[in-house]
Amino acid sequence: MPYVNIKITDEAVTVEQKAALIKGATDLLVDVLGKNPATTVVVIDEVNTDNWGIGGEVVTKLRANNT
Amino acid sequence: MPYVNIKITDEAVTVEQKAALIKGATDLLVDVLGKNPATTVVVIDEVNTDNWGIGGEVVTKLRANNT
Amino acid sequence: MPYVNIKITDEAVTVEQKAALIKGATDLLVDVLGKNPATTVVVIDEVNTDNWGIGGEVVTKLRANNT
Amino acid sequence: MPYVNIKITDEAVTVEQKAALIKGATDLLVDVLGKNPATTVVVIDEVNTDNWGIGGEVVTKLRANNT
Amino acid sequence: MPYVNIKITDEAVTVEQKAALIKGATDLLVDVLGKNPATTVVVIDEVNTDNWGIGGEVVTKLRANNT
Amino acid sequence: MPYVNIKITDEAVTVEQKAALIKGATDLLVDVLGKNPATTVVVIDEVNTDNWGIGGEVVTKLRANNT
Repeated sequence: MPYVNIKITDEAVTVEQKAALIKGATDLLVDVLGKNPATTVVVIDEVNTDNWGIGGEVVTKLRANNT
Repeated sequence: MPYVNIKITDEAVTVEQKAALIKGATDLLVDVLGKNPATTVVVIDEVNTDNWGIGGEVVTKLRANNT
Repeated sequence: MPYVNIKITDEAVTVEQKAALIKGATDLLVDVLGKNPATTVVVIDEVNTDNWGIGGEVVTKLRANNT
Repeated sequence: MPYVNIKITDEAVTVEQKAALIKGATDLLVDVLGKNPATTVVVIDEVNTDNWGIGGEVVTKLRANNT
Repeated sequence: MPYVNIKITDEAVTVEQKAALIKGATDLLVDVLGKNPATTVVVIDEVNTDNWGIGGEVVTKLRANNT
Repeated sequence: MPYVNIKITDEAVTVEQKAALIKGATDLLVDVLGKNPATTVVVIDEVNTDNWGIGGEVVTKLRANNT
């Protein structure tokens, strides 16, 4: 019955990677807490880099500075 | 003043259905707790089926298996 | 499979009222979108009035002003 | 290490305004609580006006009534 | 920079189990997406069983029915 | 109408500090986006340091290591 929400920047995450996140997070709840996987929900939010900040800076700008 | 967040898969939900969810959730808070509807906020998040998992499986795949 | 999160102030909400919110929100998703209730999750967060603000004011203070 | 989530309606918010929200929210946590900005995260969610309700009404309709 | 929120019922989860969830979720983001663990945040919310519903029923009652 | 959620660790935050966060976040939305403060909601979640992780480590342990 757990609910897991994963927020990541929207940067070319593949369907396979999303499936791996969903499988991995579900397994984690089963392994650590013995939760029932049938009612374990995982939701992934992909956030535009314009809308994510760290250290007071927009990620879009941080990415540009690193290239 | 309550805040209600409804997360559903992004599968052709109509504007009328969204309006019904917003009206229904607001009425629920008014009826059960006597909250003021004027400051009751409802936000609906529609999530791509690639980004939603249950039972460790991606919903996109579960939907395909059911057709 | 929907997930509903209801945030309300922590002001003597009874177990019966919480049950009514959970039942009502689940019914809403079933009625409006035909969702499966068995995998519809509702989580209620009760927030201390010191931690909730509206109009730039803490709710604890707003409540005190109204008495 | 704080995490700030700002939900607003998706109504032509500019990149500059988003940067100002990220900078302002980070500064607020630094100023009020002395948090480390380097690990302060801000995420902005822009929500379609069809998906946001207040007073039981969809914002799209409220906006149309005001014009 | 990812943010992971794990919501579980408040049922005697130990400090060691919480540490395992935090370690496991962080490793998952590193392994699948190559994220930087130093800025990966995990927050666990423990929710009273009176405040969690599934299938329209309060979890407290579901647990009582199973004993 | 914006909704702001601030998650911080539960470490002796005072009522005055919470009021400053609520006022500051509301002012930010008014100043940057011209939002109506009367319907701007701010909710602060204080999270036990056992339930917050960064870099794969529980904050409780990180704090102990720093003393």
